[in-house]
Amino acid sequence: MTFDLKRRAAAEFMGTGALVCAVVGSGIMAERLTADTALALLANALATAAILVVLITTLGPISGAHFNPAVTAVFTSRGKLPGTEALAYVGAQAAGAVVGVAAAHLMVALPMFTPSLTPRLGFAQWLAEIAATFGLVAAILGGLRFRPDAVPWLVGLYIAAAYWFTSSTSFANPAVTLGRMLTNTFSGIRPMDAPAFIVAA
Amino acid sequence: MTFDLKRRAAAEFMGTGALVCAVVGSGIMAERLTADTALALLANALATAAILVVLITTLGPISGAHFNPAVTAVFTSRGKLPGTEALAYVGAQAAGAVVGVAAAHLMVALPMFTPSLTPRLGFAQWLAEIAATFGLVAAILGGLRFRPDAVPWLVGLYIAAAYWFTSSTSFANPAVTLGRMLTNTFSGIRPMDAPAFIVAA
Amino acid sequence: MTFDLKRRAAAEFMGTGALVCAVVGSGIMAERLTADTALALLANALATAAILVVLITTLGPISGAHFNPAVTAVFTSRGKLPGTEALAYVGAQAAGAVVGVAAAHLMVALPMFTPSLTPRLGFAQWLAEIAATFGLVAAILGGLRFRPDAVPWLVGLYIAAAYWFTSSTSFANPAVTLGRMLTNTFSGIRPMDAPAFIVAA
Amino acid sequence: MTFDLKRRAAAEFMGTGALVCAVVGSGIMAERLTADTALALLANALATAAILVVLITTLGPISGAHFNPAVTAVFTSRGKLPGTEALAYVGAQAAGAVVGVAAAHLMVALPMFTPSLTPRLGFAQWLAEIAATFGLVAAILGGLRFRPDAVPWLVGLYIAAAYWFTSSTSFANPAVTLGRMLTNTFSGIRPMDAPAFIVAA
Repeated sequence: MTFDLKRRAAAEFMGTGALVCAVVGSGIMAERLTADTALALLANALATAAILVVLITTLGPISGAHFNPAVTAVFTSRGKLPGTEALAYVGAQAAGAVVGVAAAHLMVALPMFTPSLTPRLGFAQWLAEIAATFGLVAAILGGLRFRPDAVPWLVGLYIAAAYWFTSSTSFANPAVTLGRMLTNTFSGIRPMDAPAFIVAA
Repeated sequence: MTFDLKRRAAAEFMGTGALVCAVVGSGIMAERLTADTALALLANALATAAILVVLITTLGPISGAHFNPAVTAVFTSRGKLPGTEALAYVGAQAAGAVVGVAAAHLMVALPMFTPSLTPRLGFAQWLAEIAATFGLVAAILGGLRFRPDAVPWLVGLYIAAAYWFTSSTSFANPAVTLGRMLTNTFSGIRPMDAPAFIVAA
Repeated sequence: MTFDLKRRAAAEFMGTGALVCAVVGSGIMAERLTADTALALLANALATAAILVVLITTLGPISGAHFNPAVTAVFTSRGKLPGTEALAYVGAQAAGAVVGVAAAHLMVALPMFTPSLTPRLGFAQWLAEIAATFGLVAAILGGLRFRPDAVPWLVGLYIAAAYWFTSSTSFANPAVTLGRMLTNTFSGIRPMDAPAFIVAA
Repeated sequence: MTFDLKRRAAAEFMGTGALVCAVVGSGIMAERLTADTALALLANALATAAILVVLITTLGPISGAHFNPAVTAVFTSRGKLPGTEALAYVGAQAAGAVVGVAAAHLMVALPMFTPSLTPRLGFAQWLAEIAATFGLVAAILGGLRFRPDAVPWLVGLYIAAAYWFTSSTSFANPAVTLGRMLTNTFSGIRPMDAPAFIVAA
């Protein structure tokens, strides 16, 4: 790998790790503090959206701030990223997601990984996942074309909304789904249900 | 239709569809997750505002991002949009609203359409609807004149606020009202009450 | 009055009216929908902040978007607004506040005015009111100096925060206080307690 | 001290004071109004984020708006701020934090200082504090490099998110920790636990 690609892969690793840490950590905190599931989801959605704006603004100029194999795949298929570089990106994202879960767990004194037992499956959830991923890619491509400076906000706001209008709470991100398999908390997903999510996305 | 008009009508169709899907879908999700109506409305308002910012930013440069027959009518009456094009816009918005409801329902495993039984009528609600629509149009025209780049945010914030200070939860949009007739969930409106909302808007 | 001053006073009237309508209306709606006072205040604060951003962005270029006698007094004392024009501004703001309450009440089928019975008094609340008004003026002047385009957001965010760190829920605005005397709902203030608030502000 | 340094230290004093007043005051208000801890934390986080955007935008052009000894230390270690000036900054921040707590207490008719009894300790919390401070510094440095105009938003959003994904609710700021030792309310921290927080940060 060239130094530049290493630097960009490191940005993808750190960004995906921080994102997954925020998703999982805010879910754990919210679920501990309230019995109201809608309130927990609101906190989870706001924390996710806020950290996305920060991460995309600060790491976007380095790696493009994909943090998501589905986004990387779209850029590669459009000829914006060579396939070999895409592999480095996806590997960094997957590793970041795993480390992000461990970090979130350690910060609240949980074991590093606790395989999720939350079932999330069925045609409706897969449809939602496909729609959410399609919308995310559309928001990114539309933003890059018309208002590149607004992309961090567009992604944050899109994900905040998508948490609420998809029953899958919009994973829309195979790397995040990988991370969520490893946490048996608010944001978890049962490993045996995850492959369908990843394919849908 | 010219290719350009088709492209713009498609943007109106997709934008209105995504907007209605977010309005209805977030209402369903919120209502399922909490017994507190104010919390459900808060989630519904935030999801609607967030998706509006995204949709207006990314589709505005294509079609103007009306997503609303009342807005289209204002632009036509000011000579900014020919009447024939306005018809294409309104048709696309109505079709988008219908498809948006169906999508929201399918994603949570409900039947495609469930006529609403929620009564929303009375002089106060119609007054609120007139005021909300007037305010929305004023916000759009004022924004276009003084800060065109801020219009997506102005509309999102206006609608988020208007959900709370109008007892009708600010439909302010005949296409959205059409969609809401077709869902017997949090955001629904009884079809027999809808015509007055549409006239008021 | 010159035509220009009339136009500016009309902007102050409309802006203060819409602001008070949003403050009072969202308070009524929130208090009807939940038994949790913090949740009602959260909805009240978010709706107020959102409408402030919209109103200051769209009316600021016309009148400066004071909507507040305390702000008008500061601009006059700094020589930015002649005393005679300040009188027209304050009159318009007071009239707007009264009409705004009536509008909020009519939209929810309440009588036009219902004198408030909510006591809000004591040294701590007056201190909070002084601090809140000082902070608001500092935010406006600092914003005008360093980032004039950000002023609508600064005021909206400041008020949203000040709702929470002042026990008076930060009226910081004699015109809004006048309006709040006229509503016996969530945001009301007992008329006999209001003069101290107005002096403090 | 030169006049310029005095002016900058005054900005650090006022900014840190207002920040701590908002953190402590919104915590007190929220805890009084609801029994739901997640809702209180949501209000606390939103008020903190909102006031941070306002303070950094309006005071940043004067002093850099550190409001945080950890941030001052980073700038000094990178050669951006002489050590003697850093001392003045840190002194102003500490004094501001103390005054901010007193102001928040006086506004709600509490004694000026009430030493906290809330235990916050353990390896997980210290790890969270280190991670939160690292993330804050990364967000600031990344923002200054790529989007300096966005730094107020980046810090506000980062802190709002970090309240949720660190079990310490992200103090990430030794001056704020000092202030929090002095309040036995929602945001308090037991003095005997504070030194570890300050070292971690």
